[in-house]
Amino acid sequence: MSVRTIHVQGNVMARNDEYADRIRRRLRDAGVIAFNLISSPGSGKTTLLERTLDRLDAEFPIAVVTGDVQTENDARRLERHTGRLVQAVVTDGGCHLDARQIHDAVGALDLRETRLLFVENVGNLVCPATWDLGEAAKIVVLSVTEGEDKPLKYPTAFRRARYAVFNKIDLLPHLDYDLDMAVRYARQINPEIETFFVSAQTGEGMDAWYRFLRSRVSGREAA
Amino acid sequence: MSVRTIHVQGNVMARNDEYADRIRRRLRDAGVIAFNLISSPGSGKTTLLERTLDRLDAEFPIAVVTGDVQTENDARRLERHTGRLVQAVVTDGGCHLDARQIHDAVGALDLRETRLLFVENVGNLVCPATWDLGEAAKIVVLSVTEGEDKPLKYPTAFRRARYAVFNKIDLLPHLDYDLDMAVRYARQINPEIETFFVSAQTGEGMDAWYRFLRSRVSGREAA
Repeated sequence: MSVRTIHVQGNVMARNDEYADRIRRRLRDAGVIAFNLISSPGSGKTTLLERTLDRLDAEFPIAVVTGDVQTENDARRLERHTGRLVQAVVTDGGCHLDARQIHDAVGALDLRETRLLFVENVGNLVCPATWDLGEAAKIVVLSVTEGEDKPLKYPTAFRRARYAVFNKIDLLPHLDYDLDMAVRYARQINPEIETFFVSAQTGEGMDAWYRFLRSRVSGREAA
Repeated sequence: MSVRTIHVQGNVMARNDEYADRIRRRLRDAGVIAFNLISSPGSGKTTLLERTLDRLDAEFPIAVVTGDVQTENDARRLERHTGRLVQAVVTDGGCHLDARQIHDAVGALDLRETRLLFVENVGNLVCPATWDLGEAAKIVVLSVTEGEDKPLKYPTAFRRARYAVFNKIDLLPHLDYDLDMAVRYARQINPEIETFFVSAQTGEGMDAWYRFLRSRVSGREAA
């Protein structure tokens, strides 16, 4: 049973990686930095992007591709925060975005008018972790309302991500959540992971996030 | 690409459903009610079960099978709340439990000493929704820290679930969350869905949940 699944998965993955390489080349040639946001449902990816568009879209053009199992709700929320096209990929039951879908979505973007591309993946900590979408880096977004042991329970996502954004820190006073322990767990899985601590709702901690994005776009930090 | 995947998935599903039917027969013969808990990571399934074991395990014997991609953390947390065996299934990357795994886990239980079985599925709102584990009903657990539109974005989970537990209601005063709207969305997807509103942390609203479980175990409510 599992052998058969793995075999097909292997073929699908090889095709995915071909598309991912194509995307990566196109983005590099156009000077676009792409981040693939991965999280469980409800961690606040869309709110993080809304705030980020509000703050940075006037500084440099940002494109967004959203992935959802069903509905275009996230894309509709985001289009209110940018004059640019927001691409919605509805996977119709699929638990992750694949590079073919991103390839098509990127094809509809004017890359000369784009410096930063966010891919908001399907809300899921398992499936999206292993799929290369041609991004510069994966970013895992966590809500501090989840348990501290999420990095241990979903290690692939944390191993493949270069950055972790701990969101909803405004709720910490009302929670029994040990942030230091959560960070320790994340580093246990991925010692190189870089962390941000924000409330996309209140804006707390967002300046460090904006500084990071500005430095990546301006190329002051190595890709 | 997708056709091939669907084909294999079909075979796997057919085999799964055979196992699910076997489980369902065994549980029915033994007079055990089984619930399959589905949610995103961090919605509080484990805390809900901890509280439930603390309150009800002395009234009737409850067995638990936990599913996790990695670690046995949930099972270890739960074993402190019951004298009975807690089965941990580590899917090693798999994004849901399947009936074969539950069949093996149930085989190790003394069903004569069990009245209620909880299956705590992998934290994921997509994959587990379509897999029949031989349960009497699926229960979707939501945290009110997630967005109200989760039912629309993950419709399969809400369509297949007979019950929805809205958890962490103690945080409502600190959140910009419209509970009525979330319930409306859930009913839009599944008009028959029955709802509970609880804080597994503070105990608020748990009495209705306990009453429901007692009535199911005593057979006062139809399966």
